[in-house]
Amino acid sequence: MSKSLEFLTEALRRLPGVGPKSAQRMAFHLLQHDREGADMLSRALHQAVSAVHHCALCNTFTEEEVCDTCIDEERDRRLLCVVETPADQLMIEQTLTYKGLYFVLMGRLSPLDGIGPRDIHLEKLVARATDGLVTEVVLATNFTNEGEATAHYISEMLKARGLKVSRLARGVPVGGELEYVDAGTIARAMLDRRAT
Amino acid sequence: MSKSLEFLTEALRRLPGVGPKSAQRMAFHLLQHDREGADMLSRALHQAVSAVHHCALCNTFTEEEVCDTCIDEERDRRLLCVVETPADQLMIEQTLTYKGLYFVLMGRLSPLDGIGPRDIHLEKLVARATDGLVTEVVLATNFTNEGEATAHYISEMLKARGLKVSRLARGVPVGGELEYVDAGTIARAMLDRRAT
Repeated sequence: MSKSLEFLTEALRRLPGVGPKSAQRMAFHLLQHDREGADMLSRALHQAVSAVHHCALCNTFTEEEVCDTCIDEERDRRLLCVVETPADQLMIEQTLTYKGLYFVLMGRLSPLDGIGPRDIHLEKLVARATDGLVTEVVLATNFTNEGEATAHYISEMLKARGLKVSRLARGVPVGGELEYVDAGTIARAMLDRRAT
Repeated sequence: MSKSLEFLTEALRRLPGVGPKSAQRMAFHLLQHDREGADMLSRALHQAVSAVHHCALCNTFTEEEVCDTCIDEERDRRLLCVVETPADQLMIEQTLTYKGLYFVLMGRLSPLDGIGPRDIHLEKLVARATDGLVTEVVLATNFTNEGEATAHYISEMLKARGLKVSRLARGVPVGGELEYVDAGTIARAMLDRRAT
């Protein structure tokens, strides 16, 4: 195999979820059928790496000093929603139920992987949440073990600073049939049951 | 989402087998955890697109006029093995059982997808196979419907020009248990049975 092709296959393996076979298939596909796409991807990568950095306020990816969401005058500055990733933020935006601002951790606490409070920018979060305008922080980290631990840690940290902290409700998903929902979820939904 | 990030996500979707969710995950991963990898991939794509083209003799990817395999003096110039892709050629090379040369179609006949004889460089193959040195062409296209049709088409074409044409043997795979081998394969192995 030619040197350039080997280098390309190796570079494609840096993508998450791409093994040696897929990388080879991708390289052959681009060179045989989509050189325009390969050119486009090369430029997109170069551009993203040079232009994209973190929002000074919410820590998400942006090309400006402060991202479009943080700058939006229509947003409720009293609410701050903490999410793990920009993808999670997009999911919440799609629900159209939240009009406050965000803080994106870009990760979750995971001591086993060596990811501590500093790696998820908790100092930046504390500074952001204590700006004098924020009154409630909504924790929307994932409901995995690591996400729950992260939420717990942040909750203790912010409550100690006098902030109101809430967490997304847990319970049976919409469309969920009890027969097929796991026992842990049902137990939680029972404990958190609401008057109708 | 920032413009550069949208452009990058869109560009990653040009890779085979990558949908919108994976593309987003890849983009976030590269920007958050592996900017060096993103840079490397950008350069590798650019380099491959500008340097890699097809070998004048065997049609595989190379950066030279003629690829390393075709130029190798140790190879038996009387044998020419026809494969669909460079990946197939690598698999055959790994067996260490073949010392002839190759012709890489870079595809297979597939009328439903609009892929005809011209798209798999059959004119170039005929010119290559009738160089006066080649005496036997070994067809090693896949044993799929399309690969078989391609082998049949090439076989007729080359036999009409007086060349000896052979096909990889079909049969029960090494380690195969009859109970779990499909009937078509067993039927084929029965018809092609060999004296011991």
